[in-house]
Amino acid sequence: MIQPILLTPGPLTTSAATKAAMLSDWGSWDSAFIALTASVNRDLLGLVGGHDTHVCVPLQGSGTFAVEAALGTLVPRNGKVLVPDNGIYCKRMVRILGVLGREAVVLPHGEQEPADPSRIDAALAADSSITHVAQVHCETGTGILNPLPQIAATVAKHRRGLIVDAMSSFGAIPIDVGSIQFDALISASGKCLEGVPGMGFVIARRAALERSEGNSASLVMDLFDQWQYMQKTGQWRYTPPTHVIAALREAIDQFHAQGGQPARLARYTKNCEALKSGMRLLGLETFLPASLQAPIIVTFHSPPDPAYVFSEFYRRVRDRGFLLYPGKLTTVDTFRVGCIGAIGPEILQQAVAAIADALREMGVRQLAPTT
Amino acid sequence: MIQPILLTPGPLTTSAATKAAMLSDWGSWDSAFIALTASVNRDLLGLVGGHDTHVCVPLQGSGTFAVEAALGTLVPRNGKVLVPDNGIYCKRMVRILGVLGREAVVLPHGEQEPADPSRIDAALAADSSITHVAQVHCETGTGILNPLPQIAATVAKHRRGLIVDAMSSFGAIPIDVGSIQFDALISASGKCLEGVPGMGFVIARRAALERSEGNSASLVMDLFDQWQYMQKTGQWRYTPPTHVIAALREAIDQFHAQGGQPARLARYTKNCEALKSGMRLLGLETFLPASLQAPIIVTFHSPPDPAYVFSEFYRRVRDRGFLLYPGKLTTVDTFRVGCIGAIGPEILQQAVAAIADALREMGVRQLAPTT
Repeated sequence: MIQPILLTPGPLTTSAATKAAMLSDWGSWDSAFIALTASVNRDLLGLVGGHDTHVCVPLQGSGTFAVEAALGTLVPRNGKVLVPDNGIYCKRMVRILGVLGREAVVLPHGEQEPADPSRIDAALAADSSITHVAQVHCETGTGILNPLPQIAATVAKHRRGLIVDAMSSFGAIPIDVGSIQFDALISASGKCLEGVPGMGFVIARRAALERSEGNSASLVMDLFDQWQYMQKTGQWRYTPPTHVIAALREAIDQFHAQGGQPARLARYTKNCEALKSGMRLLGLETFLPASLQAPIIVTFHSPPDPAYVFSEFYRRVRDRGFLLYPGKLTTVDTFRVGCIGAIGPEILQQAVAAIADALREMGVRQLAPTT
Repeated sequence: MIQPILLTPGPLTTSAATKAAMLSDWGSWDSAFIALTASVNRDLLGLVGGHDTHVCVPLQGSGTFAVEAALGTLVPRNGKVLVPDNGIYCKRMVRILGVLGREAVVLPHGEQEPADPSRIDAALAADSSITHVAQVHCETGTGILNPLPQIAATVAKHRRGLIVDAMSSFGAIPIDVGSIQFDALISASGKCLEGVPGMGFVIARRAALERSEGNSASLVMDLFDQWQYMQKTGQWRYTPPTHVIAALREAIDQFHAQGGQPARLARYTKNCEALKSGMRLLGLETFLPASLQAPIIVTFHSPPDPAYVFSEFYRRVRDRGFLLYPGKLTTVDTFRVGCIGAIGPEILQQAVAAIADALREMGVRQLAPTT
């Protein structure tokens, strides 16, 4: 059976070479693996130009593990975190803060509204007890890109800490510590770097991490302890997902060979354009206006035709070799299509053709609301 | 370069077929992956005969993540945990309990002394506020096997909860819910099941897990929430390490095909015997008496010869294709050799020959203390 193409925001389709990098076993204590870990950390840090000011701390588990670890380690127990909320990953950070017992202040936005730096500015001006802002960069729930440079400048002006969930943007959207000040920036192996899932990482400002000892109410999620141990020994504190890290090393090599972040953004932009223009020709409408759309994942309105049922649509597109992603909006019926992974625009064109065939087979005629 | 054999207690050497199972990408939302997860959970539960009373909850990360998740979810915030301590993994549980803010009572043992059911009995009789006992099955720090059936009977007699770290015993040493009562038993993908590292799991008594809502002070480590979500959707709450799980599925298939737990124990026992008898012929002494030794990992006294330096010894044995493991004892100088992984006794014989060559080259003549 031909492997389906994952049009999902991670796990995603990885290259054959990345998967083949998992065909060796590594001793976690061995010098070769210590060098592998160090090289991955160095390269991840290099991607944001952070060598002088920041450190990279990897963590076992999914990206959400790294988000919780960053919040639980960098925000002191009496800290207070402003969360500009325009989607489910923002809400997940609020939920994490609640479980961790850190006070959260939610700044509600609409799901089609980018996080607003002027409202963040006003919120920080009004409440000096807010210690941190936790900001999602690309909100994968809708695909919206939040204006990180402006938000970072606002947070820096007020001298608060900024914690960025850059899960689905890292490696594709430009981020540089020279122009964007942050205390922590979080992503994972299986996103735009096109590795396999199993490892998150936090690019943390060294000075902020140094102050964070004792904040974490978890041993395994304590980034300070993970960092200290890795600095001392070169090893992970607890058994690392060795094969996942070897795959990430290979994926980063390909990333560099292909031209780094600018080339990745260019390819994803082409993917996104191929998808959107093809879907527009079919008559399907995007949830977001083009100006707010990150070229990572696109949310489409579900066809209002009674013949449309997502599970059936999914199955028929799957039979043609493509895995779609359900919508995650509570009030609007949508589905999502990812633009990331080791794929080019011709794949997105084929996916559009598969979507067209599936809808035709299902007898779905009305693809957009009549306006 | 030929891949070195890992004589380490996980990550360990996996079969070619297990690694090859990672050559596909999986959509975490897809029905095929949901079925894969369900089949792995079902088989892990079946290994301890737990289908009627227990559930299997997998968790991203290393085995220690699953240990912390089990303690943080199943022990209420005002709980009190007795930890019979005869090694570093016992001490790690004590440290986790401290960070989680759960009271721990340590029952100290010598590192060559198995956990003593009569002392556990007395401790439970003396303190009715102890809610749980946290017991390491095979203490990987030394390789000692603790008498789990007797300890479980003692804990059950006092009607307290038992949480077992079975990290390096699960799949090799017999464990059955019919003869060993426990609330939670923890292991991981990359141990005696011979998968790759990246996933832990907890076999939890359903009735105990049902009572645990709200105990966890972490979102990602909340086993109750992970279980509820998986029951409802068949999916993992957060991105799963898809390739690791596919490898574990393949590794479990091989486990069954090779004859299950009895066959695995028989092979590891042969490995351990080949190792011990070969090392004995060289003159190297085990740290533990044979009666206490689990056939998982063997601790050897370092040669008292001044020409012996572990790092140099490690390098020379590595050059011959085998990765050893350092000792983890604080007071005695030791090194360790694992018996587990997709290897047979001939590999251990070759490892002994490599060890003999390395020591000869180094000019190490005195291999054991003069008594």
